[in-house]
Amino acid sequence: MRHVIRRNIERAEAAVIAGLGVEGVSTVHEAMGRPQGLLRPEIRPIQRGTRIAGSAVTVLCQAGDNLMIHAAIECCRPGDILVVTTFSPSTDGMFGELLGTSLLAHGVVGLVLDAGIRDVVELNELGFPAWARAVSAHGTVKATPGSVNVDVVCAGALVSPGDVIVADDDGVLVVPRSDAAEVLAASQARTAKEAATRARLAAGELGVDLYGLRARLAELGVEYLDQP
Amino acid sequence: MRHVIRRNIERAEAAVIAGLGVEGVSTVHEAMGRPQGLLRPEIRPIQRGTRIAGSAVTVLCQAGDNLMIHAAIECCRPGDILVVTTFSPSTDGMFGELLGTSLLAHGVVGLVLDAGIRDVVELNELGFPAWARAVSAHGTVKATPGSVNVDVVCAGALVSPGDVIVADDDGVLVVPRSDAAEVLAASQARTAKEAATRARLAAGELGVDLYGLRARLAELGVEYLDQP
Amino acid sequence: MRHVIRRNIERAEAAVIAGLGVEGVSTVHEAMGRPQGLLRPEIRPIQRGTRIAGSAVTVLCQAGDNLMIHAAIECCRPGDILVVTTFSPSTDGMFGELLGTSLLAHGVVGLVLDAGIRDVVELNELGFPAWARAVSAHGTVKATPGSVNVDVVCAGALVSPGDVIVADDDGVLVVPRSDAAEVLAASQARTAKEAATRARLAAGELGVDLYGLRARLAELGVEYLDQP
Amino acid sequence: MRHVIRRNIERAEAAVIAGLGVEGVSTVHEAMGRPQGLLRPEIRPIQRGTRIAGSAVTVLCQAGDNLMIHAAIECCRPGDILVVTTFSPSTDGMFGELLGTSLLAHGVVGLVLDAGIRDVVELNELGFPAWARAVSAHGTVKATPGSVNVDVVCAGALVSPGDVIVADDDGVLVVPRSDAAEVLAASQARTAKEAATRARLAAGELGVDLYGLRARLAELGVEYLDQP
Amino acid sequence: MRHVIRRNIERAEAAVIAGLGVEGVSTVHEAMGRPQGLLRPEIRPIQRGTRIAGSAVTVLCQAGDNLMIHAAIECCRPGDILVVTTFSPSTDGMFGELLGTSLLAHGVVGLVLDAGIRDVVELNELGFPAWARAVSAHGTVKATPGSVNVDVVCAGALVSPGDVIVADDDGVLVVPRSDAAEVLAASQARTAKEAATRARLAAGELGVDLYGLRARLAELGVEYLDQP
Amino acid sequence: MRHVIRRNIERAEAAVIAGLGVEGVSTVHEAMGRPQGLLRPEIRPIQRGTRIAGSAVTVLCQAGDNLMIHAAIECCRPGDILVVTTFSPSTDGMFGELLGTSLLAHGVVGLVLDAGIRDVVELNELGFPAWARAVSAHGTVKATPGSVNVDVVCAGALVSPGDVIVADDDGVLVVPRSDAAEVLAASQARTAKEAATRARLAAGELGVDLYGLRARLAELGVEYLDQP
Repeated sequence: MRHVIRRNIERAEAAVIAGLGVEGVSTVHEAMGRPQGLLRPEIRPIQRGTRIAGSAVTVLCQAGDNLMIHAAIECCRPGDILVVTTFSPSTDGMFGELLGTSLLAHGVVGLVLDAGIRDVVELNELGFPAWARAVSAHGTVKATPGSVNVDVVCAGALVSPGDVIVADDDGVLVVPRSDAAEVLAASQARTAKEAATRARLAAGELGVDLYGLRARLAELGVEYLDQP
Repeated sequence: MRHVIRRNIERAEAAVIAGLGVEGVSTVHEAMGRPQGLLRPEIRPIQRGTRIAGSAVTVLCQAGDNLMIHAAIECCRPGDILVVTTFSPSTDGMFGELLGTSLLAHGVVGLVLDAGIRDVVELNELGFPAWARAVSAHGTVKATPGSVNVDVVCAGALVSPGDVIVADDDGVLVVPRSDAAEVLAASQARTAKEAATRARLAAGELGVDLYGLRARLAELGVEYLDQP
Repeated sequence: MRHVIRRNIERAEAAVIAGLGVEGVSTVHEAMGRPQGLLRPEIRPIQRGTRIAGSAVTVLCQAGDNLMIHAAIECCRPGDILVVTTFSPSTDGMFGELLGTSLLAHGVVGLVLDAGIRDVVELNELGFPAWARAVSAHGTVKATPGSVNVDVVCAGALVSPGDVIVADDDGVLVVPRSDAAEVLAASQARTAKEAATRARLAAGELGVDLYGLRARLAELGVEYLDQP
Repeated sequence: MRHVIRRNIERAEAAVIAGLGVEGVSTVHEAMGRPQGLLRPEIRPIQRGTRIAGSAVTVLCQAGDNLMIHAAIECCRPGDILVVTTFSPSTDGMFGELLGTSLLAHGVVGLVLDAGIRDVVELNELGFPAWARAVSAHGTVKATPGSVNVDVVCAGALVSPGDVIVADDDGVLVVPRSDAAEVLAASQARTAKEAATRARLAAGELGVDLYGLRARLAELGVEYLDQP
Repeated sequence: MRHVIRRNIERAEAAVIAGLGVEGVSTVHEAMGRPQGLLRPEIRPIQRGTRIAGSAVTVLCQAGDNLMIHAAIECCRPGDILVVTTFSPSTDGMFGELLGTSLLAHGVVGLVLDAGIRDVVELNELGFPAWARAVSAHGTVKATPGSVNVDVVCAGALVSPGDVIVADDDGVLVVPRSDAAEVLAASQARTAKEAATRARLAAGELGVDLYGLRARLAELGVEYLDQP
Repeated sequence: MRHVIRRNIERAEAAVIAGLGVEGVSTVHEAMGRPQGLLRPEIRPIQRGTRIAGSAVTVLCQAGDNLMIHAAIECCRPGDILVVTTFSPSTDGMFGELLGTSLLAHGVVGLVLDAGIRDVVELNELGFPAWARAVSAHGTVKATPGSVNVDVVCAGALVSPGDVIVADDDGVLVVPRSDAAEVLAASQARTAKEAATRARLAAGELGVDLYGLRARLAELGVEYLDQP
């Protein structure tokens, strides 16, 4: 297997990325039609209430070895999100405060890590948001090669370098770079439509009426029983 | 299998429900003698510090399909708690902000869900409390029938429509409707008794003395070794 | 099997324990050279942002039985941390507010529990920090013997009575009592060195340069590809 | 909570039970319309290739305590299946060769256990089939009360005493006693129909044709792309 | 999202596929340099001792819905392996004896499924090998679209249509179609080399000598202590 | 942390070890009084029906790195069992056919591994028994130091070099070397006593009578209800 570091990648337009960061994971995933691309729900934020979007710089590491994270930093541009995965399952703490400090210095806006993270208090104090599989103080070595900016599978989702990552308290989503503008438009349309729906539901209208589900319930043979 | 929606159910007395909501999950479960009825600990709150009690409106869904949640809303009365389970295991995000808005408009006080939830930030902002197995942005379809207000098993506990649900940071408990008043009395008695115990423990008295456990330790053959 | 309660144990020096509590789990584990001694990452804090260190009073219980926790309290001295494990896996809620009140009255500074905990809101209000495997309201009996202050395995780590426990949001670490002073010195040296590293990384210097990793990457055959 | 042992229960007709044992778990569950009633897939057989059906004698135990299994044996009749669950999660080995010997002496045809089992080689040699959550040599005490022949939740399914249990390599299913005859008829009809389907599929006919799915695929907007 | 069925795909040479099937998962993965491409170890065979290789026909399904498996069968050619994954996690029994019969009729040599399987006894009797995440009798619906022969992520590995799948008791591996011939050569070379190594190890030679590891141990500071 | 290889260890008497191997895990653990010492039930055999006992040669490895297994082989004597654990959790395939061949050549009788294993078919053919956490083809590196024949925690149990390991289909047990003879005697006594119990149970006698449990049930307040 060839191990490579690709220093230059193509990214989506900044305005599109920013727009996706406003919409958030659940809205954008719905607007895409719910493809594969959502990371498995075991990947959780280490902070509360943060929503980000950015361009994926992908990192493929030996489990328990963060050498390639160090190698990846010079491939990052302001606005990027580091997406780190391992060849085999691991919860080792591959990332902590020093790496967070370094990424912040290079304008990286967050981390997605299918492994363990540590220094979570310090990372919160730095204001560096991260999503990870586990919290673990168990450190890592720097002994085995991997790659930067190759296609990777991270927590069940395919991530290509330059894809747009959206992450918030609902999870982490991958938007293919070439679809990003179209997905943003669909997301914004969905948000607009949901505002009207929300108002009607808040006023007490029922979803079964609003979405026309009574006919479907009848067709599926669901019976109403009104006696207690 | 017949799929039904029971629109009218019997509920416990409002004062009893409110009383159970004061006592909380751990106290009430102890007062009941620790029967089955506690949901498995994988069901966790999406907020911190909220304690509720209400009447169960039960919903039985196909995994990955929230049609019956929509159908359940017109069966809810102010003070109810929606209890949603699936025929087979799932972490899909079956519930989000729009359903929360709708339930709030109908006076529902919370959600218990043996599946995934999404829009957790928005639900927290709405002040709609929820307990769920996972957070997942993965949406659901509306294609397959289920039932509302039938007996269900939810996260290891049997829930009948109208049972009292108590939920807080310690988990979720089912109190059978017909036992609710008696359970409340037992819970209040326990709370009163614990106040005295707490005061003695806070003053430094030892539990082995207060509960008379020294004799049991001796009888079980536990030896004291006092040399370091 | 003999069941014993050892009332007197040797502890590390108070100043050394306090120093380890300043350094924190991740730093101290690194300074030790990452031995076994870190509890498995399933053990999580029930609060946020608390860091403690103290001397281990160990408790070995039948699963679902907290008799020996009661027996352990008179073995505790101010500054101790109770470390509780079970003979077989369990998530039952072995510890709650009353036990927290009692431990606080005896100066115990925290709890590490490879089982379930309950009354988490009340424990947070009391200011009693705890690390546990699960939150569960399911109470326990007091029927079966165990031991206090014997060597135990807790969540994958060997703990001897009087070992120093360090616990924070990154997890829980065991420092053998006889190594504690040396480990503190190594931790402080590491912290001092990291301050310089942090400043350089914050200024934008790359870890691959600072740690001299470019040669290793080359030696491992990692190739740079600079075209997008 | 009251703890009871109900020595006499009603059972389904022997011929119906035997018939369900011929059909097997997957067929019967399909014939029932896939209700709740299937135990969670974590419950696995300790042998290969055995299919049984029998009447449930239910046992509700404290985790780590098999007292009530001993109490249940005199409630068993030839052809019964012991269904054992615990108040809280456990993998302790609650059942082994001696209990298997005892149940065989009373004509019991198998065991379903939402906990751990041991002596699996010896149980296989005895020819006593069992389905359990885990294999564990960790024994149990006999100290805490429970009940026999009450409604229980076992591995996610409600089991009432006298319900028909069907178990094979596909898992464990609960058929409510009063539905058993009707479910058997539906299962046999399904098996008959499947024989014809199997023959057509074995001859190479496609399911999309046989089940008429091409129209649905088209209606759902699925497109065929024929170029490689 | 567009849902498509691609009826024609390119495959590797039959002789190469057959050769990889001789080498087996562990050897081939080593020969490839251990890239991502190995399915997560939760995917286990339902039989013992079977080793296969074939061309991947990929199927992407809604969780709990096997419509697209039916649609995929006419895309299969003799020697293919069906690789089925879902948009979100599921253990539902998406595949059983009838689908196995149909695939056998079309010459398909096995199934890889990141979900549940049923009729495991019948599938073993048919001689149809399968690897799956779980065994579950819980059936599925045919209501929601997906795709056939698109790139999918299955149990942590990227699979493109026509990639070579190798599966045995050690797990499941994906070999990119265009690399297959080169990977086979490397695998055969490795096997040849291992035969010599095996003979020397069987004769009692030590791996530390044979692989030259004594120098590395010394360099890493590992000390020998020879007193007991 | 110092990394050491201890080439000479003390072992229990061969006759005692052999005797424990006759008794098996469940009997010996009971005879010991069920202490900590049983490995967690996730550690499962890769074969069926094999029971072994031997002296522990312990190996502590970096996760994903089997360097120290190679180093351990010259520390093994005929009759030993290799016990391998990692500093942090891992399922990587650290052990396969070549290592099995090497251990067999040195008379080692089995392997206990808190990680992944591969070549399971080949190991079964060799007749080399193993117990492991997972089956995984994912190979390991030889880059990071560890130790041989130091005290380790393996799957929740403390293992000292030279302790007696007993392993069979019920799991894996550690018997401290110095207790081995006494434990064997207690095990044999238990086996003798169980033979009589087995005969009485096989004749239909009830455990509640044989063990005198009726009084306990009454004392615990369990009521008999004899109407159906």
